[in-house]
Amino acid sequence: MRIAVDAMGGDNAPFSTVEGSICAVKEYDVEIILVGKKDIIQNELNKHGYKGNNIEIVDADEIIENDDEPTKAIRSKKNSSMVVALNMVKNKEADAVISAGNTGALLTGGLLIIKRIKGIARGALAPVYPTKRGISLLLDAGANTDSRPKYLQQFAIMGSVYCEKVLGIENPKVGLVNIGEEEKKGNELTKAAFKLLSDTNINFYGNLEARDIPEGYADVIVADGFVGNIILKLTEGLASAIFSMLKDEFTKTLKTKIGALMLKPGLRKFKKSLDYSEYGGAPLLGVRGAVIKAHGSSNANAIKNAIRQAKVFVDNNVIEKIEKDIEILGGNDDRE
Amino acid sequence: MRIAVDAMGGDNAPFSTVEGSICAVKEYDVEIILVGKKDIIQNELNKHGYKGNNIEIVDADEIIENDDEPTKAIRSKKNSSMVVALNMVKNKEADAVISAGNTGALLTGGLLIIKRIKGIARGALAPVYPTKRGISLLLDAGANTDSRPKYLQQFAIMGSVYCEKVLGIENPKVGLVNIGEEEKKGNELTKAAFKLLSDTNINFYGNLEARDIPEGYADVIVADGFVGNIILKLTEGLASAIFSMLKDEFTKTLKTKIGALMLKPGLRKFKKSLDYSEYGGAPLLGVRGAVIKAHGSSNANAIKNAIRQAKVFVDNNVIEKIEKDIEILGGNDDRE
Repeated sequence: MRIAVDAMGGDNAPFSTVEGSICAVKEYDVEIILVGKKDIIQNELNKHGYKGNNIEIVDADEIIENDDEPTKAIRSKKNSSMVVALNMVKNKEADAVISAGNTGALLTGGLLIIKRIKGIARGALAPVYPTKRGISLLLDAGANTDSRPKYLQQFAIMGSVYCEKVLGIENPKVGLVNIGEEEKKGNELTKAAFKLLSDTNINFYGNLEARDIPEGYADVIVADGFVGNIILKLTEGLASAIFSMLKDEFTKTLKTKIGALMLKPGLRKFKKSLDYSEYGGAPLLGVRGAVIKAHGSSNANAIKNAIRQAKVFVDNNVIEKIEKDIEILGGNDDRE
Repeated sequence: MRIAVDAMGGDNAPFSTVEGSICAVKEYDVEIILVGKKDIIQNELNKHGYKGNNIEIVDADEIIENDDEPTKAIRSKKNSSMVVALNMVKNKEADAVISAGNTGALLTGGLLIIKRIKGIARGALAPVYPTKRGISLLLDAGANTDSRPKYLQQFAIMGSVYCEKVLGIENPKVGLVNIGEEEKKGNELTKAAFKLLSDTNINFYGNLEARDIPEGYADVIVADGFVGNIILKLTEGLASAIFSMLKDEFTKTLKTKIGALMLKPGLRKFKKSLDYSEYGGAPLLGVRGAVIKAHGSSNANAIKNAIRQAKVFVDNNVIEKIEKDIEILGGNDDRE
């Protein structure tokens, strides 16, 4: 299996991307194609003394920056590491692509270059969401802004497939994020989506109130991209605010400092369990290839995790299964 | 000033409502009208040995339960404590009404019985949102499901007035909840609302990413009712999940138990700062009267705080100021 890594994407690139790739080829049966500025990448490889045959460099001399406008960047920076990596998947020169770079550009590039699966109306970004019971999958976390009920139905199907095949959760429960538990609750979108999801061949849990998301009652958390993005970002912000406020409390007196010291290992472990970058990256579901968005601040370990995730994604034929399920659903139109 | 309290509404009614009212008349210059089953209320007053003249009982023998369908309950339970209390404000027999009962019924009742301020298209539920910097006001937290840009503009105006007059924050900064900071980001609703808010006579901060909500960058957090409700409920759920997971970590070994004991006072204080019921209740803004929704699980202290809040609301002529600001905005139509 060949996995293309956008070596220049992310806050810690190319250090993290090169080191993570070296760790991955040592642990997993994969070949990595590092895409980016050849000299810089080779230099990094040399630093780590890597001399194996499982890493290849493909030169690309442009970089899509975080503040680049996504569509413009994808169209104009044809020789950027991200666009070259995406094209490798399109041209079947790679089985998967990973980038920790500009999220919007990767989503746009995935859709424009690799293109959608037949029958899929919209792609969805699907990060892992840590809960009290373990992990859930949240989608769409922001690939779209305005959604139709049909999109949410397809998100539910794609999320179920990914959850089962990659996260290993059998017959995953699908919850629809809503402002009440009852069927009739919600806005126009969720009321219509509830009906559609009830008629879909998935394990539909029903409406999921936001209060219950962290409890882990649903394995697949379905929301439109605006709401999903709010959920993801608020969770990040709140966890970070709570930890920073706790830290202030804990450093107030000698007594609290000693108390905090005794709790440090547990706190660190707990904080880690909330950190979704620990679980690899977020797939862009709905395109004809495995596209994984790693967190912008990914370190080598996070890149390695994303590579493992891409391998499981490809090994388990996620795309073929989505294609089949969408075909069974039938009657879809890309322009719907 | 006369404040009607729905004595039968809430998980701890009538104990909390009666006790909270007694505390309030002792501390503040207010008269309380306890609305509900006369015998039960009188019995509670006797238990506390209250013999003053600042609490009056108005008999109402029905109760709107939490699982009653709001509109149906308001229309059919004419002699419920909530409907009778709302009618007292409508008929100018009371200056404000407080209820810890069925939220949907109170919102519906406020709009149907007391009616909207001229020019206001929709009412908004506006709870306090605790942040790292203190408190912000979040609206709409769920009075509406589908919203138009114009509603969000009016929420921003009403929120600014309330924030200044009741929370005492001068020239409050208004943030629009969105999935990016730039003006062009968002869904159709927020993109249009951004333009409207930019042209409104408020202190517009711009788009506010969900990640930054807990930071307290904005004093007034504007969102449509669906998104606002998700923000409120997710915050509750996440804070509760984090504390329960921390508790699990802290009780694992003797060492962590001792550590946790040393941190207990600080943790308790911190938890309290996140508990929005500490700040009284959430006003239903946009109606022609002070309607305060206290938290369902309000204890006597929360009811007392809600009474103080209602007093400040009325003392500072919030409704007259909203009326004036909406009139200045001009050109509104209730059916818009």
